[in-house]
Amino acid sequence: MRMYDIIEKKRDGFELSLEEINYFITEYCNNNIPDYQASALLMAIFLRGMNERETADLTNVMANSGDTIDLSEIPGIKVDKHSTGGVGDKTTLILAPIVAACGVPVAKMSGRGLGHTGGTIDKLEAIPGFNTSISRENFIKNVKDIGISISGQTGNLAPADKKLYALRDVTATVNNISLIASSIMSKKLASGADRIVLDVKTGSGAFMKTLEDSAELARAMVKIGENTGRHTVAIITDMDIPLGRAVGNSLEIIEAIETLQNKGPEDLMEVSFELAARMLELCELGTIDECKCKVREAVTSGKAIAKLAEVIERQGGNKDVIYDYSLFPQVSHKFNYVSQNFGYIESMKTDTIGIASLELGAGRETKESSIDYAAGIVFDKKTGDNVVKGEVIATLYTNKQDKLEKACSLLDSAIQFCEVKPKAKPLILAYVDLSGVVIK
Amino acid sequence: MRMYDIIEKKRDGFELSLEEINYFITEYCNNNIPDYQASALLMAIFLRGMNERETADLTNVMANSGDTIDLSEIPGIKVDKHSTGGVGDKTTLILAPIVAACGVPVAKMSGRGLGHTGGTIDKLEAIPGFNTSISRENFIKNVKDIGISISGQTGNLAPADKKLYALRDVTATVNNISLIASSIMSKKLASGADRIVLDVKTGSGAFMKTLEDSAELARAMVKIGENTGRHTVAIITDMDIPLGRAVGNSLEIIEAIETLQNKGPEDLMEVSFELAARMLELCELGTIDECKCKVREAVTSGKAIAKLAEVIERQGGNKDVIYDYSLFPQVSHKFNYVSQNFGYIESMKTDTIGIASLELGAGRETKESSIDYAAGIVFDKKTGDNVVKGEVIATLYTNKQDKLEKACSLLDSAIQFCEVKPKAKPLILAYVDLSGVVIK
Repeated sequence: MRMYDIIEKKRDGFELSLEEINYFITEYCNNNIPDYQASALLMAIFLRGMNERETADLTNVMANSGDTIDLSEIPGIKVDKHSTGGVGDKTTLILAPIVAACGVPVAKMSGRGLGHTGGTIDKLEAIPGFNTSISRENFIKNVKDIGISISGQTGNLAPADKKLYALRDVTATVNNISLIASSIMSKKLASGADRIVLDVKTGSGAFMKTLEDSAELARAMVKIGENTGRHTVAIITDMDIPLGRAVGNSLEIIEAIETLQNKGPEDLMEVSFELAARMLELCELGTIDECKCKVREAVTSGKAIAKLAEVIERQGGNKDVIYDYSLFPQVSHKFNYVSQNFGYIESMKTDTIGIASLELGAGRETKESSIDYAAGIVFDKKTGDNVVKGEVIATLYTNKQDKLEKACSLLDSAIQFCEVKPKAKPLILAYVDLSGVVIK
Repeated sequence: MRMYDIIEKKRDGFELSLEEINYFITEYCNNNIPDYQASALLMAIFLRGMNERETADLTNVMANSGDTIDLSEIPGIKVDKHSTGGVGDKTTLILAPIVAACGVPVAKMSGRGLGHTGGTIDKLEAIPGFNTSISRENFIKNVKDIGISISGQTGNLAPADKKLYALRDVTATVNNISLIASSIMSKKLASGADRIVLDVKTGSGAFMKTLEDSAELARAMVKIGENTGRHTVAIITDMDIPLGRAVGNSLEIIEAIETLQNKGPEDLMEVSFELAARMLELCELGTIDECKCKVREAVTSGKAIAKLAEVIERQGGNKDVIYDYSLFPQVSHKFNYVSQNFGYIESMKTDTIGIASLELGAGRETKESSIDYAAGIVFDKKTGDNVVKGEVIATLYTNKQDKLEKACSLLDSAIQFCEVKPKAKPLILAYVDLSGVVIK
């Protein structure tokens, strides 16, 4: 088999066989195929496309290119949730304890944040003492003992995806549905879950800016799931506005705690509870309506917040943070960002808000940057709210006073005003499974 | 300017500006752009195409990436001819003396052969003493003194094309009309001619296998010529059959000598005289019919063969070869390849014939291989001829007796027989200029 022939075949619009895809990925990872041939093939794939079968094969081959996690020791159906990433997205912190409280094992591997979106692992590390680097054995043991464990990615999961993504990133071949979908799903497959719930974000703060693109990506991932034996469903949720009111690590943990006590912001409760219910549904705990009731019950009964306390304690954290927010790292400066305008907030450029939060210290610009867990933004006003001049729109938390000006000017450019109250948009825009896309 | 943005722009089907093309070529040649970005762009160009303006700009930028030859010292219009390469194609050896004999300066730079097609420079070196490595000064001086000089490529002409071609060759991005056309024309532009006649070959022995593809390539090159200020015309000629009867270096020189004395094979005379006439026409020596008369007159008067003798002598060769073929290198073995069939020759796979000749020693497989100038094949029978079993189809010349079997088996596979005399095909299939393609 020759890489040249594989490039030529895809260039001319033909379907690649499993053997050809496997040859490409295996030999590329073994450094037997040079980058310049790989990038020519990637561009041919970008422009010619891959069909469902090719996309599933690519995903499978990448998933098996490194370590794979075996969750078979844990009894029952293991369900995972993945979000395509957004600003203020702390749903994992909420749904994981809920689902575990409902008796479904949660063996959750999460990532760190990079750029303007946050990562679950960074957020958890805002809890004093919380250890996200636990061994594979303890990870499994915790799930068996208390039904839940949340850890950073251990081992070398889907290294082919890492290598390929780095090349795509510099050759303008990232933004292709098949390549994005196989990249995401290869990591999920390697993480060992039986079934997967996807939260595909759409809008200014998301990777996919339109509902059409998001639906296409969701469909592609649902099909990969089916074609690789992992039943997968997706919801598409709005990321034209930050989710909840808090952006930043400890601030988001606090908001998650409030939500698990049924007093979080409405939008965050809606998305988190929907995702949790979809996970329960996938684990065959009843119809979607029955599962929604189970979720509500876990929250109102206090079982969900108790489960959070349990996992914090088990992983070395101080569970008293649940009742005493002063135990979280604190900032030296709190600053009121007040409105220079009056009227209604028409829109919020969510990615710009993410960057403002990053400037305040809440994110990392490069892999090597360190995070200020206390930094971030809490919004008093969001899209659709009425504001008068001088009214507080948000509180900025930072230890870097010199960054306040930059953050404010980013917020100035992110927030648009109008005179008439804008029409409310639905938060959950669509549900996607094998039978198609249902727009809500 | 960023290479990433240039890739993305072409990927999305947009037109690249001169500045972008110049940035790509210049920085790639300076090793500031990695191969993997260049190959991604080449694949995007392959699949998205380049328009006339982009193709002309790419050609110009590549032509100016290294040395350019200045022929302005030579008075008059300088016309060049280029063939896309074929088997048995010795037209340069014929038309150069004819054109010079008609008073048009011939400053001809030619290449060496690689693979199954031969190169003019290799053929000339079959003449004992003939020096193809002459200095730039002597090259110009010879043209001024005797109206003709033929040399190997000196200097570093169009190095960007060389670097890019090497990358295209391993990334399945060779076979694109814009890229082929700009590659050929960049070298012609750097060689300094004012006007260009192209011989685009079509058929089994050519790069382009169909008339449609050949016409498209010819059109692209004619347009590049116009857009870069070098008036260009093309003819498309058949390469489904070797041109003339001889394949191999000294064998082709002998055939060229015969043709210059008006006793060459008909097909070779037709193509060579047509190309010579087109060159005269481009130099404004009259209508095409008047120019054809001038060509005939140069041959029948003996002026053309005298001009060949003059250039051989001037470049250190033994001009007596014209009258005494025994002065050429000789082979140890001549072998009659006889027919195992009877009937008509239906077709000849011309590229396979080229490979058979190469096996006998007439070509080089790699740049480092040496050539046996005496080796080759002379055909007694060609497509359309009737043969009886045991009749000689060709004579094989070689110093490697052990290669005869392989060469014969290649000829067996190259030559197809049929029972009914195949319909004769025209040799000159089309004429292409700015106004379009005229199928003959």
